[in-house]
Order: sequence, then C-alpha cells, then structure tokens
Amino acid sequence: MENKNKIPVGILGATGSVGQKFIQLLKNHPYFTVQEVAASDKSAGKTYVQAVNWFLDSRIPSEVANLEVKKCDVNLKSRVVFSGLDSSVAGKIESDFAQAGYIVISNSKNHRFDTDVPLLIPEVNPDHLRILRWKKTGQGMIVTNPNCSAIGLVLALKPLYDKFGLEEVNVTTMQALSGAGFPGVASLAIADNVIPYIAGEEEKLEKEPLKILGSIENNTIKFCDMKISAQCNRVPVIDGHLEAVQVKLKKKADIHEIIASWEDFTAEPQKLKLPSAPEKAIYYFREDEYPQPRLHRNLEHGMAIAVGRLRKCPILDYKFIVLAHNTIRGAAGGAILCAELMKAKGLLEK
Amino acid sequence: MENKNKIPVGILGATGSVGQKFIQLLKNHPYFTVQEVAASDKSAGKTYVQAVNWFLDSRIPSEVANLEVKKCDVNLKSRVVFSGLDSSVAGKIESDFAQAGYIVISNSKNHRFDTDVPLLIPEVNPDHLRILRWKKTGQGMIVTNPNCSAIGLVLALKPLYDKFGLEEVNVTTMQALSGAGFPGVASLAIADNVIPYIAGEEEKLEKEPLKILGSIENNTIKFCDMKISAQCNRVPVIDGHLEAVQVKLKKKADIHEIIASWEDFTAEPQKLKLPSAPEKAIYYFREDEYPQPRLHRNLEHGMAIAVGRLRKCPILDYKFIVLAHNTIRGAAGGAILCAELMKAKGLLEK
Amino acid sequence: MENKNKIPVGILGATGSVGQKFIQLLKNHPYFTVQEVAASDKSAGKTYVQAVNWFLDSRIPSEVANLEVKKCDVNLKSRVVFSGLDSSVAGKIESDFAQAGYIVISNSKNHRFDTDVPLLIPEVNPDHLRILRWKKTGQGMIVTNPNCSAIGLVLALKPLYDKFGLEEVNVTTMQALSGAGFPGVASLAIADNVIPYIAGEEEKLEKEPLKILGSIENNTIKFCDMKISAQCNRVPVIDGHLEAVQVKLKKKADIHEIIASWEDFTAEPQKLKLPSAPEKAIYYFREDEYPQPRLHRNLEHGMAIAVGRLRKCPILDYKFIVLAHNTIRGAAGGAILCAELMKAKGLLEK
Amino acid sequence: MENKNKIPVGILGATGSVGQKFIQLLKNHPYFTVQEVAASDKSAGKTYVQAVNWFLDSRIPSEVANLEVKKCDVNLKSRVVFSGLDSSVAGKIESDFAQAGYIVISNSKNHRFDTDVPLLIPEVNPDHLRILRWKKTGQGMIVTNPNCSAIGLVLALKPLYDKFGLEEVNVTTMQALSGAGFPGVASLAIADNVIPYIAGEEEKLEKEPLKILGSIENNTIKFCDMKISAQCNRVPVIDGHLEAVQVKLKKKADIHEIIASWEDFTAEPQKLKLPSAPEKAIYYFREDEYPQPRLHRNLEHGMAIAVGRLRKCPILDYKFIVLAHNTIRGAAGGAILCAELMKAKGLLEK
Repeated sequence: MENKNKIPVGILGATGSVGQKFIQLLKNHPYFTVQEVAASDKSAGKTYVQAVNWFLDSRIPSEVANLEVKKCDVNLKSRVVFSGLDSSVAGKIESDFAQAGYIVISNSKNHRFDTDVPLLIPEVNPDHLRILRWKKTGQGMIVTNPNCSAIGLVLALKPLYDKFGLEEVNVTTMQALSGAGFPGVASLAIADNVIPYIAGEEEKLEKEPLKILGSIENNTIKFCDMKISAQCNRVPVIDGHLEAVQVKLKKKADIHEIIASWEDFTAEPQKLKLPSAPEKAIYYFREDEYPQPRLHRNLEHGMAIAVGRLRKCPILDYKFIVLAHNTIRGAAGGAILCAELMKAKGLLEK
Repeated sequence: MENKNKIPVGILGATGSVGQKFIQLLKNHPYFTVQEVAASDKSAGKTYVQAVNWFLDSRIPSEVANLEVKKCDVNLKSRVVFSGLDSSVAGKIESDFAQAGYIVISNSKNHRFDTDVPLLIPEVNPDHLRILRWKKTGQGMIVTNPNCSAIGLVLALKPLYDKFGLEEVNVTTMQALSGAGFPGVASLAIADNVIPYIAGEEEKLEKEPLKILGSIENNTIKFCDMKISAQCNRVPVIDGHLEAVQVKLKKKADIHEIIASWEDFTAEPQKLKLPSAPEKAIYYFREDEYPQPRLHRNLEHGMAIAVGRLRKCPILDYKFIVLAHNTIRGAAGGAILCAELMKAKGLLEK
Repeated sequence: MENKNKIPVGILGATGSVGQKFIQLLKNHPYFTVQEVAASDKSAGKTYVQAVNWFLDSRIPSEVANLEVKKCDVNLKSRVVFSGLDSSVAGKIESDFAQAGYIVISNSKNHRFDTDVPLLIPEVNPDHLRILRWKKTGQGMIVTNPNCSAIGLVLALKPLYDKFGLEEVNVTTMQALSGAGFPGVASLAIADNVIPYIAGEEEKLEKEPLKILGSIENNTIKFCDMKISAQCNRVPVIDGHLEAVQVKLKKKADIHEIIASWEDFTAEPQKLKLPSAPEKAIYYFREDEYPQPRLHRNLEHGMAIAVGRLRKCPILDYKFIVLAHNTIRGAAGGAILCAELMKAKGLLEK
Repeated sequence: MENKNKIPVGILGATGSVGQKFIQLLKNHPYFTVQEVAASDKSAGKTYVQAVNWFLDSRIPSEVANLEVKKCDVNLKSRVVFSGLDSSVAGKIESDFAQAGYIVISNSKNHRFDTDVPLLIPEVNPDHLRILRWKKTGQGMIVTNPNCSAIGLVLALKPLYDKFGLEEVNVTTMQALSGAGFPGVASLAIADNVIPYIAGEEEKLEKEPLKILGSIENNTIKFCDMKISAQCNRVPVIDGHLEAVQVKLKKKADIHEIIASWEDFTAEPQKLKLPSAPEKAIYYFREDEYPQPRLHRNLEHGMAIAVGRLRKCPILDYKFIVLAHNTIRGAAGGAILCAELMKAKGLLEK
C-alpha cells in the first residue's frame, strides 16, 4: 500500500514515552501513516525533533522528525488518533475528541470503564467491539488498551478461562522502569533496589481483567466473576513486566492440558493476519529459569508473551510465570493492534 | 571482656561469602574471637589474605588477615565452629565435627531437618534448643540457621502465629544477588533482568517454617500445620531479600491488631540483651512505598526486619511486604545470634 | 560537649540531596548542632519530615524531623549556615546572607571564584583562610567547598604538587549518580548505559584546581600555572567518583617516591584532630583492580580518598586511579570539615 | 544464493560467548552457512542445544540447534573456520588448523602479532591481506580480528591518520560486561561499581593500533610510529565500549575538517557492498550527551561506530568520544566482515 492509500493518523501526547513508542512502531506501517503529532502547549509550534527528548534506541523516523507539533485540540485533520496522553489530562481531551467525531485509540486509564468504551485485547475480547456498532456513521468513539500489567496477565489467563474456568487469580508483579514513563523513576531511587509499590497499579490489575474477560449482554459488557489479588513492585529492569501468578480453576486440569491450552492458543488477530499480530501470542518455556525479561521480552517483536514454570500450588491450584513487553504489547503495540482489528472490522471507515 | 576471656572460634568455609561475613561481623565481638580459619584444600596453607577473594566493603580484620588457612578436618583447636560451608561439602564435614565433639553452628542446609538439630531463629523458637539438653557434657552438636528467605518470613509471621494462628502463607520473593554467594550470578545473566527461579529455594521456603514454628513434643520437634506456597525470584539488588506475603489467619484480626503484634514484638534475645540482638526485631513502616532493600536492609546493623504495606487481600486475609538483610540477619548475623543464645543458656561451656 | 555548648547552625537547601547529607552527617557532631532548616518557599511552614523526600539509608535524626522548615531569608537565628542550595538560587541567597553578617559554608559553585572567598580543601589549602582575616568582627563571609570531582583529584595531586611540581594533569572521570542530586538522572537514561557528558563539569575540573593549589600573594589568591584537561562521564554507580588521571611532573620521581608522597601525606586537619578529619587522607592500594567505588568509597567514613594503579604513562609521566566519595568528602562532609577548620582557627567566634 | 552454493563454515569455541554471537550473526548469511560446531571435549558429542548455555536474546537458529558438537581437532570438513576460542587454548589449536590447510578467521589474541598474520579491520587495512598472497593454493592461513576496544578506536582514528597524521593517542575506556565473556564478571563484583582494571587490555590497546595502521614494506607489516596510552575500566553496561580519546595530530586541522573526515569516510567494504558492511562506518553526533552505549551501540546492526563531543584539548590537540558494539563490530561481526572481504578478494577459494 502506498502512503497515499494509508490511513493518516495523529498522535496525542507524541513527545511522551508512549507517544515515542507509537511513532517508532508506526514507521513503515502498512495501514497507518503518522500525519500529525500533538503535545502540550509548551511543545506546540516546535518541530518534533526540537520538542522531544527522544530516548529510544532507534532514530526518529525522518517523516516525523520535522512535523510541527500541534496542540491537543480538536483541530487535527486526522480522524484516527492514538493517545499516549498522561492520565492527568487524557480524560477531558479524549472526551472532546470523541464528541467531535474522532476515533480515539487510547493507552490512558481514564475511559477504560466507560460503558460505551471497549477495554480491548484483540486476542481476548475482539467481540467487545460490538458495543460500538450502535454508533452512527461519523460518530466519534474511544477504544482503550488495558494497563501494561493487565495485558500480559489476561493473555495468559484467556485460554485457562475458556477451557477450565477461573475462580481466583493471585499475582505479584515485578515491573520494568519504562512502565513509569520518562523521566519516571529516579535512578537514585531504584539503583540496587526494589520499590514495592506503584500508585494505583494494584487496583487496575484487580479490576481490568473482570471487564476484559466479561461477556456482552444487552449490548453492554457484563463483568466476569472472579477474585483477583495483586501486589505490584518496581524492579531495576528497563523493559518487560514479569508476573508470578497463581490460579484456582473451576474445572480440574492437569499440567499437560494447561500447557496445551497455551500452546494451541490462536485468535482473531492471527486468523486475520493483522500486521502487528504475533504468529503465536503465547510461548510456553520448559526451561526452569525461563522466561526472563532481557531474553524474552522481544519475542515476535515484543507482541508475544512468554509463560513458564507451570507447577502445582499448595494453596491455589497452579502457579506460573508470565512475561510481557510492557511498552510494546502492553502499551503502544497493543493499541496499534487494536486499531488494526478495528480497520479489519470496518470501524475506521469514514 | 578481654580477648583471653573470649571463646575462641573457628570458621569453616572461611574464604566463601558467608565465611567472609562471619569474619566481618565477629570483629571485636564481646563473646567470641576468631582463632582459626579453615577452607578447601587448595586454600589450606596460605595466609587468609592470600587465599581469600575478599569482596566486602570493609578491610579484612588485621587479627585474621595473617592466620594460616587450615583444612576443614577435625584437628581444629576451637571447640565452637561457625560453618559457612557450601552445601556440596557441608553434610559430611559438619557430621564429622559433631561426632568429634565440636559444637557446629551452621548456615548450610544439609542438617536442617536432622531430628536432633534445632533450626533456630533466636526470637522465634529459642525453646528448640531444649532438644539438645540430652546431649552429654562434651558431646558435639549441630545447630542450624534457616534459609535466608525463611528467616525474614518467619520473623514476620511469628507474632501473627502466636496471636491469631496461621492457616495459609503465600509468598513471592525478590532475592538479592548476595544470596547466591560469590561469584554466584553472572553479571550478564542478571543485568537488566530478573531470573524467576532459584534452585531448591521454593522447597526450603515451603518446608523450613513448619519446623521453626513447630512445638516440642516428647523431646522432638513436631512440625506445625500450615500450607505455604512460595515463588522465588532473583533480582538485581546487592543485599536484602524482599518478600510479598499473604496470610490466612485462624482468628479474625483487624489491621491495627496485626500492626500492634509486630510493633510490640519482643523476645528472648531482646530480654537477654544478646550483643547481636536488635533492640526491636521488627519495624513496621506506614509509608506506602516502604520497606525497600537499599533504604532499610541495614536497620539495626542488618539484624532487624522491616515490614510494611499491610492491607486486606481479596483471596487470603491480608497481604504485606517483608524485608530482611539476607547475609546478616539471614545468614552470618543470624548464626552468630544463635551462638550468643547458646552461650547465654550455658550450651557453649566445656 | 553538651548541646548547649555547641554552635547552633542552619542548613540552607535542607531538603535537597546535599542538605540531607548535611543533616545526616551533623547528627551528634561534637561542635555543631542543627537548629534551623531552610528550604524553598513551597517547603516553608511544613515540618522537615513532611517537606523532605528523604532517600538516605539512615532515619531522619529525631531532633531535626520536627523542625519547622523556614524560608531561606536572612531571618535565621544561626549565624553559621551550611548551604546545599541549588546553583540556580545559591548566588543571590548566599550573598544576602554574607552581607547580613552570616558565615556561609557553601557547597554551591556560585561564589567559588569570588576574590574574597576561599575555595577550601582543609588538607590542601588551609592557609587560604587567611584572606578572610581582614574581615571585621561580626562581618559575614562565604567559604566554598570545591566541586565533588575536583576534591578527590586535588587531594591526590597535592603531595605530587608539593614534592615534584605539576605541569600537566589529564583526567577522565566516571561519576556517580548521587553527584546529580535527587531526582537527578532518570533511571531510564542511565540503566545499562554511560552518559559521556555532565553539563559544566569539565570546566570546573579544569579551573578549580588552579585556585585551590594557588598561593597567597598580596592577600589574594594567585592561581597556579598548570594545564588540565578533563573528560567527565556519568556511570551507573550510586556513590563514589572514580577518576583515571595522568600527570606530567616538573621534577623526576620514581614510582616509590610518588607512592611514598601519598602514604606519608598528612596535613593540618590531621594535626588538629578535627572531628571529621580522616586519620589518613589518602590510601594507596597495591592490588591491580583497586580502588573500586563500592569497596572503597566509605574509607574512614567517606572522608579519605583511595588511590591505586600508579604506572608509567607513554605520553605524560605517570597514570593512576583516584576514588572519592562524592557526597561525603566531595560535598557535605568536606564542607563540614571546612567549618571545623574555621572553628579551630577562631573564625566562627562571635 | 541457495544454501548449497554457500561456503560451509565451522565454528571453533561454538558454545562460548563469541561462538554464540558467530552463530547468531551467521543465520541466513548470504555467503556462509554453519555446517559444523566444535568446542571443548566436555561438550563434544552433545547436540549444540544441549551443550550451550545460550544467553543471547534471540533463539538458537534451528539449523544449528541439533548439530552434534565436535572436538576442536583438524578433522572438520569445513575448510573455513571462525574461531571464538579462549586465548588459553587458541594458540595451539589455531596453529594446528592453519598447518593442516584450514583458513582460520580468529577473534583470539594469540596470533595477532605473528608476522604472516594480518590484524584486520576491513575498512582500515584491507591491503594487509596482501601478505597472504605468497601462500600457495591450498595452504592454510590465519587472519585475526583485533581486540574489541582497539577496533572502535582505530576506526575512529583512521580518517585522522590518513588526513592529518597522528603523533599521540590517549584513551580511557569504559568497557561493557560482554567483553569479558560468559560467565565473565560476577554480578556482585560489578553491581553499583566500576572496576578500573582489565587484565592485559591496556597492553593490547597500546600495541595493536600500531600494526593495524602500519604499512606494508617488503611483504611484511611495518608498525606505524605513534605513542598510545590507555586506561581500561569495566562498567556495568551490557554491550558497547565507550572510549574517551585525545589525539595530537601531525598537521593542523580545525574542528570542521575533522568532523568532515569522519562523515566522509568510506572504504573498501562499503565499495564492495559486503553483506555485513555498514553503509557508513562512522556516525558523528552533534548532541552534547551522545553517543551512549544503550542508544547507539546498535547503529547499522552494531557494525557502525559512533563518535561525538569533538572539542579542543588543553594538553593534546583534540578530545572526543567513541562508541563501538564490542561483541558485534568488536568481535564476531568484525570477524565475519573480514571473511567477507577475503571472499571478495578470492582468498576463500579452494
């Protein structure tokens, strides 16, 4: 597809850490082309390269480097916008855009629990997009990407939920620095250290999976019934959230059945061969000491998750380890996959 | 007390990481003086300073630096020996010493479950030393210090166990590099990484607390009845094991009662004012983001543990964070405190 | 000395990283007692414990925790103030205090090159305090502590300068995170990384030694004549600046003479037995791989420097390694030693 | 080119860190296909996947995973072998292979100064391959890749040497962990630390450039005449050696001329469009704080070097920063580029 046939998109919060990742991942994207970048008023008017404190290990794409940074107001030309806005401002700006007819794919927490907003993981609940079908042509909408820790967890839980049912989920996370954005965590705060607290994170992790794994009834999403307990920690790792998980199943299952449920897992993004979809969304590792953030966060360009160490649990039924790349699958990459699914379903048409 | 009135002791495995810590902590000790150092055959015959790859941030005590390293055989003059031997050799050597009449205070795992060996945390189960009272005068014995992760956990559990009873304990650890000894973990293996596996560690953490919290019946230790599930991870932190814990209590307790049980906790080492005993063994922190390894591992010279973030758990009853210095309270310092308690109880007399 | 006989002091910039270190190091100080803490307007009015984001690994001293934070204006009761102010505000505030009759001992760069201000390392140029003797009784004054990298370097150079003369000094630094204050360097910026630039640092390191090693002529300090070239890098180390140094001497010297000049070095703070003075200011290590930040930064409570690896240089004459604790000897501790020297010389009397 | 038309190669020391990198980089190589892997006797007989402790962040190529590991003796079928052998064994094994008619491209130090062995950086001294032309058809030979720190340095020096001449080069390195192989540096030795010593490294860095930049006279390599002084440090960075360099030129040059000499630099690998050759071998960065290991080590897949911060030096003429990926450009990738150049010059024909 040539650029002129691609869907032009704008990036809200383009200079932030999620915004940078959107721009990095959308370079040469087959469906989308970054036409506009928008950020805070103090960046507006500068070129992108002047405004951004770029900290990724690739160069700024040349087609974006010299774009003029615009304000985050509803004068953008692109109907489709990706939002990497900070939650302190995302609530109002995203509402404004949706009301003005824009399609907002957001990585922020603010609208995740709005009743007309899907909280989407394309492999897990693609059907939740159906709550948008009552939107009239040309009407705006918001689609949200879950919290970076929730995405990896729910992807790993999905096959278990479908095959065996889930009663209880216990999770302790060891989360990467990039989850806090830039500048985020001070080096003096985390060097030779672990911080056993991330503001608001445990609440998200205990609540978001209930909507994501929920079912559609009467055109709204009914939350699923499951107990979740989360403990969230920040560790000195650059990228990749590691999670120690325990589950109590509704139906009995042996270890082989559970591993098979992961290894056989495939879903709509795979069938549709969406450009950012991993061939396999879940990799199970049999080595005792795997998965590890540095070795496995980049599986399938960071879009696949890694699972390992499945074993019996003396308290719940089973325990295992989950790893997901928090800024790719868990943020910008996941949001782009949402947009790809929306395009495939005709939701991005004018 | 002048040196000549102190109890002369030997260090087995003196060049290893636990051995180094024994020597560091025994410098100017009021009860004990290091008279002999013993290590592997390849070190034997050298002076200590020649044989050791010292990696602590204090200098080698001058009275030890020039001791000749001896072999770990039963020709040592010191009747009391501290063992920091690697578990690959500790089993036989420690047995040999005990049979030859030595008193062995060991940090190794090998004899922890022998029926005539206490697994001792002086604040938790000082009464377990009673199983040694049938030893005849001059007979040898082994007293063991628990695993470095178990010590912090059980210290935090002890007040809860006594006041409210414990049915289930769930723990996910984030363990420091020094727990693996020296050279231990390769820097390339752990830089920008977490390793979700420590060989043998989960088994120890699920089993040792049952003996430590057990009761004496018919002169043997009866294990307590409690379910424990552990997940152990290695994180890039130098010292200090952090543990995310959840408990199910036998009796109802509110948050204030639980915090009070920790803050009011005092035990025999405190009453006896043992030299290495912390004034308070448990510190509870009210700040959301505390305790942290780098900030709190050295509380009371590394002999106190830090607890924080007590809150309700949707699955078990409560969750909280525990931190202990793994090479001080969790290894050499803990073993020295055991020896101090034994001295106070007359067990080190000739 | 009881508290009532101690000199009451105030801390300017008390909540910052240098301010915290002043408070930590002045706990139980024999000469000084912290009577007042002052900081920015947004902290003023709170208690210290409320205002500060304390990140040191000791507790806030209880006598300071509940002091009310004051504004940095000339209404403080303490005539002697230590300044850990940021250089963006230190210039004017310190001038105001000096003009109002206060004695300011400052860690900031702003007044280091004022002609009536000594740039003081007590072991190196204690005589520079003589330029203050023309101050009238009751008149205010400023004494400054050099840059954290310059202190270690000049301490190591001093014996060479005195014995052999110095023509050229080349230095490449590897500086710790704490040198940038708190929050300072973002963890994402420095994890798995080195940043080969520290704004303004090379200029300081090339200029400050010339004043410190200067001589007094006509009651002013005449800079010494020496070429210095510096390259400054930030490395992921918490504390301790390491410097790779090369020197060209004026007189021939062999390796033994140079090492002897370091090992024999003693100066006025040692003779006066000032409370913060190390017994020996310079330690020379003969081990190839020493000194190292983590192992040697705390020598003599962080007040001694470590030198090692002296060897011939194919371009200049000799090369060697210098290590100094940047927040103790290189900042707060160094400034306190300056104050102790001033007290010993009667400069703090009313 | 289909696999059957590719040159089959063997890897000596295939399980080590350089061996792993060879295998990773040779996956899908257009000229070469890995046909044999050889390692120590204790690995021989196992499959590669069984024998190796793979620590790279890509999977083991499937065509190599199940190869049987052979011994490093002269019974290999592949005439061309890449050697990642440890220097403790490389000397004899590589000699044996060369005498038996093999073509050995080695990353080890042992034969770098043999008179009939080129020390090759394809962009710098491709003409040095001429010393091999007197070899008879079928005769074996050794070509060596320089030390990982020397490669980056000499690449940066080459344009200056050619245009302005070099009298003196001063360099202080900050070298990555992967330079020490696996397991290499213990995590406890380097966490929160810098080690100012790497055994043998300074000698290599002071000597190898003299041969690489040497000229051919009478069919032997005449070393160039230049003074080099090196100080080598190990820093906690995974990949990427950073070097602070100073030079004294023979001819005057201004800053623009020097930068132009880097930016205009192109050489034989670029002209021949060798598969591993970067489009540009040297990137000059104008940002003050660049280059940095984490951000720039992967420029052109790790085969380009980054240079920055050129400025006047008060002692020599100029100072600047150089960065090179030590295991790619500085080891396996550099050696593969050597082999590509040899193929282009007809040296790999039977």
